[in-house]
Amino acid sequence: MEPKSKHSGRGSGSSDPARSGESRDPAALLTSARAGDRVAVGRLLSMIERGGEPAREIGRLAFPETGGDEHVLGITGAPGAGKSTITDRLISSVRESGKKVGVLAVDPSSPFSGGAILGDRIRMQGHALDDGVFIRSMATRGHLGGLALAAPEAIRLLVAVGMPIVLVETVGVGQVEVEIAGEADTTIVAVNPGWGDAIQASKAGLLEVADVFVVNKADRPGAAETRRDLETMLDMDGTMREWRPPVVLTDASSGAGIAELWERLVEHRDYMIASGDLERRRKDRILGEFRRVLLWKLEQKVRALESGDTFRSVRDRLLDRTIDPYTAADELLTSSE
Amino acid sequence: MEPKSKHSGRGSGSSDPARSGESRDPAALLTSARAGDRVAVGRLLSMIERGGEPAREIGRLAFPETGGDEHVLGITGAPGAGKSTITDRLISSVRESGKKVGVLAVDPSSPFSGGAILGDRIRMQGHALDDGVFIRSMATRGHLGGLALAAPEAIRLLVAVGMPIVLVETVGVGQVEVEIAGEADTTIVAVNPGWGDAIQASKAGLLEVADVFVVNKADRPGAAETRRDLETMLDMDGTMREWRPPVVLTDASSGAGIAELWERLVEHRDYMIASGDLERRRKDRILGEFRRVLLWKLEQKVRALESGDTFRSVRDRLLDRTIDPYTAADELLTSSE
Repeated sequence: MEPKSKHSGRGSGSSDPARSGESRDPAALLTSARAGDRVAVGRLLSMIERGGEPAREIGRLAFPETGGDEHVLGITGAPGAGKSTITDRLISSVRESGKKVGVLAVDPSSPFSGGAILGDRIRMQGHALDDGVFIRSMATRGHLGGLALAAPEAIRLLVAVGMPIVLVETVGVGQVEVEIAGEADTTIVAVNPGWGDAIQASKAGLLEVADVFVVNKADRPGAAETRRDLETMLDMDGTMREWRPPVVLTDASSGAGIAELWERLVEHRDYMIASGDLERRRKDRILGEFRRVLLWKLEQKVRALESGDTFRSVRDRLLDRTIDPYTAADELLTSSE
Repeated sequence: MEPKSKHSGRGSGSSDPARSGESRDPAALLTSARAGDRVAVGRLLSMIERGGEPAREIGRLAFPETGGDEHVLGITGAPGAGKSTITDRLISSVRESGKKVGVLAVDPSSPFSGGAILGDRIRMQGHALDDGVFIRSMATRGHLGGLALAAPEAIRLLVAVGMPIVLVETVGVGQVEVEIAGEADTTIVAVNPGWGDAIQASKAGLLEVADVFVVNKADRPGAAETRRDLETMLDMDGTMREWRPPVVLTDASSGAGIAELWERLVEHRDYMIASGDLERRRKDRILGEFRRVLLWKLEQKVRALESGDTFRSVRDRLLDRTIDPYTAADELLTSSE
């Protein structure tokens, strides 16, 4: 099923469908996308989500064009923390700096991908007519592993077609979501005022991935205490870090604190470049992705093995208890070499 | 490091160390273990936990002797639900029926394996001098995957050396623990009275694995409500099951309700045999294990790949962004064929 993108039908290029037409050629689509054709961007993202050879081809073309000046920002935190509103405000901050921005909203709990399916996205409609903003939701196509594999490819595509800032927002704080948000150049963790929210963040492993903390809805009671809780946890954090994550109080719905947040994000980016951490983090990230791809390919191999004649023979003897599971695995793997 | 087994030094055979001696020969140890040598049983379990060729040899010898009349019972539930006390009572029930029983306490959160390290095990000391009872703790050796792989082998060993009833108790309700307990012939899920406990059980995926529910500490307020909550959730459960899990109220510390629980367990066993479900469940279990073993072997292969010359070359070009992660994975896998 082709996901529908509410946004892809707007902005420049959308009035001229002939530019991307019905093309499925990755190279041609990339050229159109770079020229500002939003339909082409949406189509390329759909191809990445579907996987297979077209996705690989896009990856081969996009990958060499990344790893430069782009800044990938991840934003995570419990549902209700106000991540979408923060994202919305940050889009404006980026736009004020004159740069184009891509937004990827990752929602493993939703079966739908596309442009503006999530209710929260509606708040970003203020940017819908801005050609410098491309917003896209990505959902679980089949399995979580697929999303974790597709997200970095989607980010690279947005960079390769001319968006030097990419915001990746995850809906919840599940393992995959934290992993995806944590693989950014700068990861923002949003919490709300209130007893225990900081502790919940710690439990979800957010303390480890955070480069910048946001206490959002800071007009509510308990904001100062939540900031203090976070600072205390950072004090107790055994690992000596050169960069201590700042804690910024915001009220994203009014825009209060967003200017300071944007400053901290730019500072973190500068620190990462100066310290060499950006280079190191990117290397680790690519090697981590490489490892996931390897494992995924091996899993595909297991699935392929499970349909052959040898499999049936091994399986029958296993179920008769003539051979044990390890001997069976050895036989099957030897047969495939 | 050789895990110490407090139990393995007791009971028959322990007074004659020459019987198992320092032997590391799986076949010889199995013969001793079958003759009642508890030191040999403990040693075989340690070898299974350590893995490698000796573990495989034990598996090859033990596997064909399983899949018969044995009854494997899993017991899981949140910490504090009273699983150890229930297990303790069930040991007595089994012994009254005249059969030998093996008990495996699986604790992924503990780095220690062996006989009686967990505090809870102390309650089972009443059985420590009973030759018909063998109790053993199994912990995470290195990684959770290792425990999930070793547990079925340990269960089969206990069956192969003459224990037709095996109780597998998990300490918590983590994914691996639920998986291990859920792979029994009959799975008991223990909850306590109190608002929300039934819902927690549902969230942890316990509703799906339960064959028999126990509301333990049923002398406390709310037992009837918890039973009703469970019954309601079973009513709502969309999947039509022929066997509807009964809900038994117990107070394991006084022994109340244990006779009824034992009756339900025997009934489930009879149902499983008559319906053909036992055969089907065992087949699914073996195929599931086979799949895990295959994946584990492939992971080993990835690790091996990550140390060769090709890996270094591929890695360097990947980090230079000359090739993308998928192309890199293909190159590495092709080189290893």
